[in-house]
Amino acid sequence: MSNSLPSWHNTSTKQTILEFVAAVTTAGQPDFVPPAERIATFDNDGTLWCERPIQIQVFFLNDRIKSMAAENPTLAIQQPFKAIVEQDWETLTTFGKKELLILFFSSHTAMTPEEFAQLAQIWFESATHPRFKRLFKQCVFQPMVELLDYLRANDFKTFIVTGGGIEFVRTIAEEIYGIPPEQVIGSSSKTRFEWREDQPNLIKLPELNSFDDREEKVNNIHLHIGRRPILAVGNSDGDLAMMQYTAAGSGRRLTLLLHHNDVEREDAYDRDFRLSPLTIALDEVPKLGGRIISMKQDFAQVFPESRA
Amino acid sequence: MSNSLPSWHNTSTKQTILEFVAAVTTAGQPDFVPPAERIATFDNDGTLWCERPIQIQVFFLNDRIKSMAAENPTLAIQQPFKAIVEQDWETLTTFGKKELLILFFSSHTAMTPEEFAQLAQIWFESATHPRFKRLFKQCVFQPMVELLDYLRANDFKTFIVTGGGIEFVRTIAEEIYGIPPEQVIGSSSKTRFEWREDQPNLIKLPELNSFDDREEKVNNIHLHIGRRPILAVGNSDGDLAMMQYTAAGSGRRLTLLLHHNDVEREDAYDRDFRLSPLTIALDEVPKLGGRIISMKQDFAQVFPESRA
Repeated sequence: MSNSLPSWHNTSTKQTILEFVAAVTTAGQPDFVPPAERIATFDNDGTLWCERPIQIQVFFLNDRIKSMAAENPTLAIQQPFKAIVEQDWETLTTFGKKELLILFFSSHTAMTPEEFAQLAQIWFESATHPRFKRLFKQCVFQPMVELLDYLRANDFKTFIVTGGGIEFVRTIAEEIYGIPPEQVIGSSSKTRFEWREDQPNLIKLPELNSFDDREEKVNNIHLHIGRRPILAVGNSDGDLAMMQYTAAGSGRRLTLLLHHNDVEREDAYDRDFRLSPLTIALDEVPKLGGRIISMKQDFAQVFPESRA
Repeated sequence: MSNSLPSWHNTSTKQTILEFVAAVTTAGQPDFVPPAERIATFDNDGTLWCERPIQIQVFFLNDRIKSMAAENPTLAIQQPFKAIVEQDWETLTTFGKKELLILFFSSHTAMTPEEFAQLAQIWFESATHPRFKRLFKQCVFQPMVELLDYLRANDFKTFIVTGGGIEFVRTIAEEIYGIPPEQVIGSSSKTRFEWREDQPNLIKLPELNSFDDREEKVNNIHLHIGRRPILAVGNSDGDLAMMQYTAAGSGRRLTLLLHHNDVEREDAYDRDFRLSPLTIALDEVPKLGGRIISMKQDFAQVFPESRA
């Protein structure tokens, strides 16, 4: 146990995590939970990997749209595509979630899931974060990767519940988090079964199936998992419903909220991040019996050692 | 290996299954599949348990509606409820899938998933099949239960992909098949996150989320699992799209179609079962390189020994 979670400082946050896991995994103790019910759900953007200046999937979208515009120049003169082609970040950062959806549909659909996965896999091999100067897939938070490993070593089943695209995150989650595709829940477009050259395939449609944020995270946890988590980890108001739902279950539960307050090593933001603000959850999570993780005080290390 | 699948006769069907599993699990062989990709999907009604004279969930619905009508007599004089209260099987068996949905919504929604699960769990403890005179939960096909166990012993991940209700099947799948809730995919109603007496809950709504039949089974496999199965097992035309999708993947694949041709031990039907016919799949599955399982010739035993 003393070797667990080496990238966490030995603070009360780490002690809370270790005590919770000990309590629910020790047979005969009042808070014991059978392995099959040890469900842990993690948000992704801002919880498992960085999300600023903008979510990693938006960098991917950006590169996809630039490739598409190079092949089809009429795209480059229309908004919202124009802002991306011209790298007009001032305009781009004013886009809301709905405008991003238009961009997502145009760049992420009208192909098979296998074709999409290949585009994303190739991108992840070389795409680099402009500020951290490391591969995006190395922009994960090392303490969170250790927490996932530690939970699984204690017979938890770890799930991602992300506002990001389910297929985008699935292409990389096994490699960087050890989480298989069937344990990734996220936003999704609809698909259609159709025959192409005598082969049955799915086609990704430009139609929203689920935008996996806020209350919809709870609906999707129920649809995909069918059990209430005993541990939920997030970093924004978009995760609060999941954390409330988790905390309200019977028996011992834990909710953890990562607060980005470390401008030297990563970033410092909460209310001001328009795309995914942290406002009321900062007050609400402690009322649930949850803990605020302070990146500055609780993380001994932020990113993994390996670099591009 | 010689002790595997004891309730199967030693026919070419059993040999096909054993050879397939050996081929995909033997390291260094050309058809080897890594454990993480060993996804097997099974239909439920008519594949893992019996479905005649009518699906087991319809017996549950029947009992639920009778309870509701006893509390609210005005229900008893309206169709489609009247046919159930009067046990008018002639009318009941003329109902299509859409009429059944009305009955499902009225008896399965407007409560929390936990409340629904409790109703189903209590029902399964004592409800008995009228023809087989055994608990419904003992109306599983013993050779299929052994096949699920055998696949898991070979590091397959086994999923149910059912036209039945996802929550209904989840209440019993772990006990009778060893399949946890998160590996059950099925038809679903929408849910809504809401506060009740200061507690956050989901409420089941009388609104269809997904009717998990035919092509929709493929959409849902993609949504929930995110990988193409290497083995798919069904018994009706409702399973054909799933089997086509499975067979069309690269590498070695197997599809199995159970044919109910054993009137003495269970039942004999295909084209004539209006609620879930087997018509074109009988011809199509062999063209996919799949196998027809003959209940009469391949099953040494149909139901488990234990009785109510």
